[in-house]
Order: sequence, then structure tokens, then C-alpha cells
Amino acid sequence: MTSPLANDASLTSLFSARAANIKQSAVRDVFEISMQPGLISLAGGNPYLQSLPLEKLAESAARIIAEQGLEALQYGGGQGTLELREQICQVMAAEGITDADPENVVITAGSQSAQDVAAKVFCDPGDVVLVEDPTYVGALNALEAYQVEVIPMAGDGEGLLPEALREQLAQLRTAGKKVKFLYTIPNFNNPSGVMLSEQRRQQIIDICKKEHILILEDNPYGLLKFDGAPLPPLRARDAENVLYLGSFSKIFAPGLRIGWALVPAELKQRFYLASEAVTLCPPTFNQMLVSAYIRDYDWLAQVRRYRELYAERCETMLEALEEHMPAGVTWTRPVGGFFVWLTLPDHVDSYPLLREGIDAGVVFVPGAAFSTKPKSSSLRLAFSAVSSENIREGVRRLAPILAKAVTKQPSETTAAG
Amino acid sequence: MTSPLANDASLTSLFSARAANIKQSAVRDVFEISMQPGLISLAGGNPYLQSLPLEKLAESAARIIAEQGLEALQYGGGQGTLELREQICQVMAAEGITDADPENVVITAGSQSAQDVAAKVFCDPGDVVLVEDPTYVGALNALEAYQVEVIPMAGDGEGLLPEALREQLAQLRTAGKKVKFLYTIPNFNNPSGVMLSEQRRQQIIDICKKEHILILEDNPYGLLKFDGAPLPPLRARDAENVLYLGSFSKIFAPGLRIGWALVPAELKQRFYLASEAVTLCPPTFNQMLVSAYIRDYDWLAQVRRYRELYAERCETMLEALEEHMPAGVTWTRPVGGFFVWLTLPDHVDSYPLLREGIDAGVVFVPGAAFSTKPKSSSLRLAFSAVSSENIREGVRRLAPILAKAVTKQPSETTAAG
Repeated sequence: MTSPLANDASLTSLFSARAANIKQSAVRDVFEISMQPGLISLAGGNPYLQSLPLEKLAESAARIIAEQGLEALQYGGGQGTLELREQICQVMAAEGITDADPENVVITAGSQSAQDVAAKVFCDPGDVVLVEDPTYVGALNALEAYQVEVIPMAGDGEGLLPEALREQLAQLRTAGKKVKFLYTIPNFNNPSGVMLSEQRRQQIIDICKKEHILILEDNPYGLLKFDGAPLPPLRARDAENVLYLGSFSKIFAPGLRIGWALVPAELKQRFYLASEAVTLCPPTFNQMLVSAYIRDYDWLAQVRRYRELYAERCETMLEALEEHMPAGVTWTRPVGGFFVWLTLPDHVDSYPLLREGIDAGVVFVPGAAFSTKPKSSSLRLAFSAVSSENIREGVRRLAPILAKAVTKQPSETTAAG
Repeated sequence: MTSPLANDASLTSLFSARAANIKQSAVRDVFEISMQPGLISLAGGNPYLQSLPLEKLAESAARIIAEQGLEALQYGGGQGTLELREQICQVMAAEGITDADPENVVITAGSQSAQDVAAKVFCDPGDVVLVEDPTYVGALNALEAYQVEVIPMAGDGEGLLPEALREQLAQLRTAGKKVKFLYTIPNFNNPSGVMLSEQRRQQIIDICKKEHILILEDNPYGLLKFDGAPLPPLRARDAENVLYLGSFSKIFAPGLRIGWALVPAELKQRFYLASEAVTLCPPTFNQMLVSAYIRDYDWLAQVRRYRELYAERCETMLEALEEHMPAGVTWTRPVGGFFVWLTLPDHVDSYPLLREGIDAGVVFVPGAAFSTKPKSSSLRLAFSAVSSENIREGVRRLAPILAKAVTKQPSETTAAG
């Protein structure tokens, strides 16, 4: 009785086809490195939690366990608590969505989990999803794990180009491809920092509606527009065709892993069941702690504090780039969010520069992490969790490395890789 | 420019093929109902949290946020904290696994999430997974969401039948099917309460090894053997071929959603990356709270308290069944865990009895929830979270309903559905 597989001693032969698509992300590559003392990390998209009311949160957490521990520590409903879903509707109102129904909110283990569920319930292997180029690495990972064909879309300083989207969709239609959705971060894209212009928002909605594809809108940074007047998300203009993802990670605390999806009514039930099949229910205690935070604390004042802080740090970073960067390097000028996106001449591959950066005491994320393409001449700098002093010093350390890369001949750069 | 899909106005046409496999579970059906006042719920597999040291936990939670809030509320590593992974190795040592390496532990959002990841990284559509019949509904949901062909395996009062497993695998091999793993709950199976006998453990390991399939061992109840001497899990005998799932939900608190996988070394990296692609990282705060619990509290004494309590309640339930149940109803006699499994004559479908139970003030979970088969003459009763008084009263309420079902002719029973 010999198994046909008996010759292949390795259990790795049992992996699914999709498992081969699951790769280490360059962002996580540098996660551990970033912790090294002495290094200035411009890599991690971490919020600056120092300004949170930790003493008050500690009291809230203690009270929840002492007074409602039997509920907080027990299983809960798969869709999340009603109290928090109602509060999430308040948060979305501040983001510009005023017609959300708690019935259509599904609370998830961070908005990452909602991206996984979206890929799962919509995408068969070979289905197409359009994304901005560059886009959030976590979304790429979630999509690729389901063998989705991810197609990057060109943009400029005002975000995704509607005309390019229209043309791409027409081509895909002609080619007989099944396009399921456009994944987009219209506000302060991670990693580019770019905000989709107001004018383009309606155009993109119209195009997707006409082509009968869903928009998966990811808006973790929406409230962090520096001047304090958030642009309403796409979902504010289209309740039927937009599946909206929100998160407490950037406006409160990522360590609680609480995000949500606002799902078009006719898609809600299946989305929710799929989410339940992954985690049973979001952590009850964490939901209650977020509820206490929204209920008992001036959370919008905290958002304002974050906003001012990030505005100041972004300004510092832009000044430092202005001062230190060599000719040939360009960058975005974000009006919100956590990130600045630097671009070097086409011939440069930014990945080998990471090693040089670490040797010089500064870490960033190479652009290829945020793209389906193997090489990128860009890189992401995060200013969110770094002091102004370190932002300046980090950029100062980075400048000579980029200067060298810019001036090298293409062949030399390749050799350096 | 008309989309080929434009005629189909519904967005539901965008669902993936696998989405059709994602169904409402009967356990969740009754989750809301169970909350109704006046009803005695023998449905939910909830631990009895009243005996937890809530005041001390409240203090721990407050201290973590006040003193380590910047870490607790921030993103963490995708594999989980090293401290908790080391402590998990201690917990597993108590469960009977003494050679676990924290490097091979992946902390997940409850062990449910680990089941989802296992299905994802191992199963292509049409691949076969063997399960006990009955088995955990959450595992069925996770597997079916990946279009796995789930094959139920017969067992008896000593658990899975090795001979049946051997024959089934031979048949599947002949049929050219790809079998990826056996999913098993050897200790106090949910829902049957059955414990796999010691003798069969090695036989099952040998069969799976020979056939080159993995064992996915789910052991949330392992420490809850009433007489306090846990049977070592399969993983204790086989470190290479067993992917082991553990959970704090039953020995501590499910509302924190912290579970883990102990993954064979050569499979670890991909399993971990897939887990990361779903949730980025487990909630840092929750991990630190579990760490504080394991570190600062006599968690084994708490397990002993749980064990005594559940032993007593199980005893009460068995006595009540003895007293009230009509001839024709049989049940398991668990030596650990949360559940007793009742079986009625074959002609009875237990699903319609749920409605009658609710009308009579008692809730249970119909057996079909735990099976790939559409009908079941069995049902699950949970004693874990119910007072002895309510266990007796619940069984008393249930008895006449089952008595009626047993004596009805098959055709009448069907009509009642």
C-alpha cells in the first residue's frame, strides 16, 4: 500500500496552488530591521500613539473587564456589536458618509481582514482586480493569495486617471476578462500620499458603474487631511456600487485590530458570513474598548491632534527633501496621511539601496513592495511616527545614497544590485 | 460602450464561485435566539467565565495600557509576540507536547483563523479533506469556503475508526483524488464529546504518515479532561506530520480571540505569511493580556476549576438525561469538554425539533450543523455555561419533544419539518 506521493518526502507538496502566490512582503522584511537601535526608520506606517490618553484608556479597559467582563471576554456576534456598528456610522459621517446603516456594517479583524474577505467572496482564480500603481502592499498580498490577476493603473498627482481606467476596462472587456472590482485608496494613498481630485471622483464612479464593476474603497486616512476638511469618499456619492473599508488603526490604535466594511445591502449577508467563517467574531473586548473611546472621549479632538502633528511632520520632511535631495529625485507633496513617495530616474532599482540605507542608519520601503512589477525606481518614506529631528536626520542620511544611485550609469546600478 | 454584464443589474453576479459555498451555520442561527430571556440555552459552546479573576484581569489590562500602551496599541509582528509564543509552548507542554519551538508557533485570531489559513494554503478546489462525522461546524465552514470536498469518517465511542480511515484513503487514492489532510478533534470532539482512544492514536498517525497526508489536529479542550490527566495529543507522537491548533478560548477567554498553530518546521514560513496576509498581525494588546494572565496568575489552577465545574455539570446532564429521556434516545458519556451528543432513531430529523424546543423554552443545536449531510437524527447539548439547575430544567423541557419525535412514524416526522 504505497501512496503515489510516497516518493516525495516533503510535506510542501501538499501546498495549494494559491500558496505559491503568498510571498514575504518587503514591508515586513524591514519590520524587524526597523527595530534596531540607532536606525532611523522611515519605513513603518505606524501612527504616533504618544498623544493618546493612555491613563484614561487604562481606566476604560479596567472598567470594562471588572464590570462587563463576562460579556467582554465571551464570544460575540459575527457582525460585531451593535453599539460599535452605530458608532462606526458616526465616524463615517465625519468622513463624509451620512447614510450608513449599522445593519450593513461588518466589523473585522482590522481592515486587512476585510480585504481578504472581499478577495475571497468576489474573486475566482484569474479574475481581474484593478489597483492604483503604486498601492497598499497588504491589498496586493490579500489579492494574490486568491490568484487574482492584479492590474496596476496609471495615475498622476491628482490620483487615478479616469481615461486610463476607461481604456483599460474596454481592453479587458474585449479580451473577455472578468473584472471584479477596482481597489482604490482615494485619500492619501499608501504609499504615494496622493489624493484623488474631487473632479475625478465622480468620473471614476460613473465608469465603474457603467462597466458593472464594484469599487473597493479603502479609506483609513480620510480624516487625516491636514487642513481638516476631508474630501467625501466615493461611497458618499454611490451607496450601491462601493464597498467601503474603514479602520480605527490610523485614527485610534492599530494594536486592537478593529476595522470595518460598509457593504452594499445586497452583498452584506454573504460578506458577513465569509467574515464569520474566518474569525467567528471580532474580539468582543476590543470592540467594547473602542466603543468606550468613541463614547467617553473627544475622539475628534484626538483626530485633530493627529492631523496637526502629521501636517507638521510632513512639512518637515518636505523641507528636508528640498534641502538634501539631489537633482533627479522627485517626490509627492501630500495634503494628508502618513507618506511621501520619492521617485528616482527610471534606470534606478530602489531595492538594493535599502541595504545601503541600513548601513547608513536609515530604513525606508523600496517601491517594488507596492507594485505588481518586479522593479521600482521609487521608495516610500513615512513621517507619521518619527520626530522632526529624526525626519531631518533620516533624510540627510538617505540623500547621499540616492545621489550616488542617480548619477550611476544604469549598468553600474544593476551591478550594485 | 455596454458591458456584457450590464443587463444583469445585480452586483451579486460578481460573487466568486466559492462564495456560493459560504452558508449560514445553524449554530449561528441559534446564537441570537439563545439570548432571549426565559430560554434555557444548551446551544452555545461558551466557557463559564464567572470563575475568572476579573478584578485581577482588570488590573492587568489597565497596567498594560498605562505602562506599555505604546507597544500594546501599536502594530506587532505577524507571527505574534515572542513572549506569548514561549508561554504557548508551556501551555502545550501541559497538554502533552514537550518539544515545541516558539519559532514554529503562529498566533492567530482565534484558532478559527488558523483553520481558515490551513484550508487556504493546502486546499485547491476539489481537494479532499477527511473529517470526523460529526465535526466542528467552524471547520466545515472554513473548508467549504475553499471548495474543499469534505468527506465525513465514521467513528464510535472511542473516536475515529482507523480501519475506516485506511479504507477510505485507499478508495480515494484509487479514484485519483488528492487528499490534503485529516481534520480531527481527538479530545472531546465538538460536538460529540468523544475522546479518541489511546490505542487508535498511533494507528491514525501511522496511516496518515504512510499515505503522506497531514493531520490537522484541533485541541481546544485537551486540558479539560475531567479526571485531570490529559491524553497527549497526536502532535506529541508526531512532530513532522501534525499541524496542531490550540486556543485560549476554552481555558481562558474567547472574547480575546487568541489561538495558535504549531506548524511543522518546513511548512511554517508559508503558513505564517498566509496568516499575515489575512490579519497583518494578531492584536498586540490581547496577546499582552494573555501573557500577563499566564505569567502573573495560576492559570493551571483556573484550568482545574474549569475542569471540576464542567465535570459536575456533565454529570448533572447525564443524570438528567437518564431520568427524562425516552427509550430510543442514546447519548455519549464524555470524560471532558463541553458537549453531550444525543442520537434519535434514524427516521428523525432533529432540525424541525429546534422550533419546538424554542417554543418549550430550550435551545440546542441540530446535528446537521456538524455534518456535510443535509439531515441528522442527532443534536448537541452544551453543559459548559449552564447552571446545574438550568441543565436539569432544560433537559426536562426537551424530553417530551424528543419523546414525541421518537414515537412518530417517519412520514409524520418529515411532514413536521
